[in-house]
Amino acid sequence: MSEEKKERKKEEAAQLKAEIKEMREHLMGLQQTIRAKGLPIIVLVEGWAAAGKGSLINELISELDPRFYNVVSPVITPESESRYPFLYPYAKAIPENGKIMFYDSGWMEDCVRKYMHREITREEYKKRIGAVNEFERQLRDGGYLLLKLFVDIDGEEQRKRMRALRENFETEWRVTREDLWQQREYKLFRECYETFMEKTGKLIPWHVLDGKKKNQAARDALKLLTKQVDKALEEGRYVGKPFEEDFPLIKMPKLASVDLSPALTDEEYKKELKKLQKRLGELHNIIYRKKIPVILCYEGWDAAGKGGNIRRIARPLDPRGFDVMPIASPEPHELARQYLWRFWTRLPRSGHICIFDRTWYGRVMVERLEGFCSEDDWKRAFNEINEFERQLTDWGAVVLKFWIHIDQDTQLARFNDRQNTPEKQWKLTEEDWRNREKWPQYEAAIDEMLEKTSTENAPWFVIESNDKKYARIKTLKIVIDALEKACEAQLA
Amino acid sequence: MSEEKKERKKEEAAQLKAEIKEMREHLMGLQQTIRAKGLPIIVLVEGWAAAGKGSLINELISELDPRFYNVVSPVITPESESRYPFLYPYAKAIPENGKIMFYDSGWMEDCVRKYMHREITREEYKKRIGAVNEFERQLRDGGYLLLKLFVDIDGEEQRKRMRALRENFETEWRVTREDLWQQREYKLFRECYETFMEKTGKLIPWHVLDGKKKNQAARDALKLLTKQVDKALEEGRYVGKPFEEDFPLIKMPKLASVDLSPALTDEEYKKELKKLQKRLGELHNIIYRKKIPVILCYEGWDAAGKGGNIRRIARPLDPRGFDVMPIASPEPHELARQYLWRFWTRLPRSGHICIFDRTWYGRVMVERLEGFCSEDDWKRAFNEINEFERQLTDWGAVVLKFWIHIDQDTQLARFNDRQNTPEKQWKLTEEDWRNREKWPQYEAAIDEMLEKTSTENAPWFVIESNDKKYARIKTLKIVIDALEKACEAQLA
Repeated sequence: MSEEKKERKKEEAAQLKAEIKEMREHLMGLQQTIRAKGLPIIVLVEGWAAAGKGSLINELISELDPRFYNVVSPVITPESESRYPFLYPYAKAIPENGKIMFYDSGWMEDCVRKYMHREITREEYKKRIGAVNEFERQLRDGGYLLLKLFVDIDGEEQRKRMRALRENFETEWRVTREDLWQQREYKLFRECYETFMEKTGKLIPWHVLDGKKKNQAARDALKLLTKQVDKALEEGRYVGKPFEEDFPLIKMPKLASVDLSPALTDEEYKKELKKLQKRLGELHNIIYRKKIPVILCYEGWDAAGKGGNIRRIARPLDPRGFDVMPIASPEPHELARQYLWRFWTRLPRSGHICIFDRTWYGRVMVERLEGFCSEDDWKRAFNEINEFERQLTDWGAVVLKFWIHIDQDTQLARFNDRQNTPEKQWKLTEEDWRNREKWPQYEAAIDEMLEKTSTENAPWFVIESNDKKYARIKTLKIVIDALEKACEAQLA
Repeated sequence: MSEEKKERKKEEAAQLKAEIKEMREHLMGLQQTIRAKGLPIIVLVEGWAAAGKGSLINELISELDPRFYNVVSPVITPESESRYPFLYPYAKAIPENGKIMFYDSGWMEDCVRKYMHREITREEYKKRIGAVNEFERQLRDGGYLLLKLFVDIDGEEQRKRMRALRENFETEWRVTREDLWQQREYKLFRECYETFMEKTGKLIPWHVLDGKKKNQAARDALKLLTKQVDKALEEGRYVGKPFEEDFPLIKMPKLASVDLSPALTDEEYKKELKKLQKRLGELHNIIYRKKIPVILCYEGWDAAGKGGNIRRIARPLDPRGFDVMPIASPEPHELARQYLWRFWTRLPRSGHICIFDRTWYGRVMVERLEGFCSEDDWKRAFNEINEFERQLTDWGAVVLKFWIHIDQDTQLARFNDRQNTPEKQWKLTEEDWRNREKWPQYEAAIDEMLEKTSTENAPWFVIESNDKKYARIKTLKIVIDALEKACEAQLA
């Protein structure tokens, strides 16, 4: 190299470093505004083994306040998480408002690797790509800033780097068998990465960085990040517009048209209950063994009898294999994240049954009617929830949703009974009376919910509960029927 | 059997059922008071394989509101948790105030099984028994009601039950190889269980139930539970008295006597920093490989330079292997549990480094001085924290604690600088000024904390930080030194 060229190179390097320094400081200066405005940021760093993802992240965070960001490496999370939907570790790790989460490789690596290993079929792989697009859109629509980076190196460079790592005793362990396999199959991997980026880059684009030029990659990443943050802070929190997607829907009756007269005698009830609970207990064993996850969702009017109904389901179950998740109003750390987060983190492991006592449908009922979210938010939720539930059933879950239904007179009678019975008074709150006044608005919202979210894979069932005994038996039968089908399907 | 005898048997059975029903209803009636008074309850159900622990729990919960209790089976939690201290899954699962948590076997089974398998040595086993006693006492002293049940059956009965389970295709899987081994080694297990109960029954007694008589066991358990709940509700929340335990303490200087003049030139600082960070990065690799957990605790005066100090430690670390945990005031769901819970749940996995930016020592500083806990609470905390940290170091963790120290003049200068520099203003709050006014009270509390909690296994280091550069280098050196020793110790 000529002296002149060397000089120019040196100048360029100095220039690069100055740029990096400047942008880092700019980002540092933004921290407070990000926090004050509550902007949540996700930086997904994907790329080749040995491409330098870790050190790129280190460049990005080096001046940041540690209270302000976190780094997760979901790929190396415990095996146990394979008993959850594939997006589970990523959904679980989303940052709260005003913080940055760096994913040191994430859902791309996960999908591509499993597909390359043939741990998932081509069809499953396609579904996962669909789910990734849904997941990313939901985050964006929920106000998250999502930056997706891919650190690229060519096969020759990767080979050299891995050799260097393996020659040093201290770093040898860093090259896994998996990495060596990637190196051998570099071409196939490249194809697969490229297709993945193409299929998931439409809504939120990928940015490919040159991993061979470390400083340049750091500069480019910082530039992208600061630019997007500047823009997001200027424009304010993004709220996604609602839109309709095609889901295979089951036609539901309007609540007003539901006949609430069905009832059972004590004798019929006792006989049926015993028989059905015995059967459910047996099925629970099979479910557990076959590792089928089961999610039962309960919604219903106040005093409709949700609690007693749930208890009749829970009674024959082995307590080791099920959980009841009571859902109250969200806590601060839950409010600070996308609204489905608190449900993602409560999902059962495969083989377990989770009974949700109230659910994510709060979004299109109480949150809608009380104005706890914007109109766009709840309108978008119908689709988002359908997507979420499809991800659950694609994972293999049985998802059943019960609307425990009574009429207004029955509710009033039960409210009065509660008021007049000292042991039951705690069950009745001021809020129950207030909700009762809004019956017509709730009924309209519920009708819309049933119409738009009763999908073939995750259907709603209206449970007539003026007679609680009838309601319990009906619910038990539906659960048993669905579990029997799921067990048979897995057998085939 | 004579007719008369048969008749009597039948009567007894009916009597038993009536008692169970009555007590269940009584418990159901107590739910609201338990919730209102915020009493947290733990029911630990231990016992032989096939003794009927699960069905006993089912009897206890059958009338309870599912929003009110939960059942955990920590023994079958994922393998991943073996990368945490052995008490971790149990500490993680403690209930919040006003709720009941049933442990379907727990720390007893865990300890005994590991000891029988020789996964832990006799000495480790003894330590674990000590830790169990500490853990239980801390819960009791924190106001938890803890009921410990052991469901007993003899070897012959166990053999019969296991055979019956194995003969049925649906239940065959329930008998694990582990269970069969227990059956073969019944005698040894019995000895071990008995010793364990003897060693852990002094503070909170064990209650042995006859697993052969299912209804009687249910009745006895319900009786114990309702009686203890009645008592606890009557007497009000228990607050444990402080007491002194012997810990190998390191003599610490009074803060007032600390010479704060040490300083470094820019040149010295830069040179040292580079060298030390390089070394720390290398050590991080070894730590990761050897699966040594590392916990670095930062406390210090406002504006002492904690953040910058932490950043200098974090800089050379691989982001995949460390976390910074900023500790702010507790959230509602954290306040609703024993105060160490939010730290238990934030522990690093083995091989990872966790930097706590503020820690559990808040208990004996801000919570003490602001009256957020009772005098007994913070006085007890010195011991409780020493125990907690000993459990961490017994697990194999390196625990280092830094008090980042400055004098009042330096703090004032830094406060003024923050106030006058727009980008730094957010760092200074009203609270900082208020805390500053209480400097003497804080200093006394900190001196007491340093005196009582600088143990040989988890020492405090006072870091002179009037010169931040000096402070950073000193901290780095301490960390490096400790990690080198830990790596060598594991080699030997």
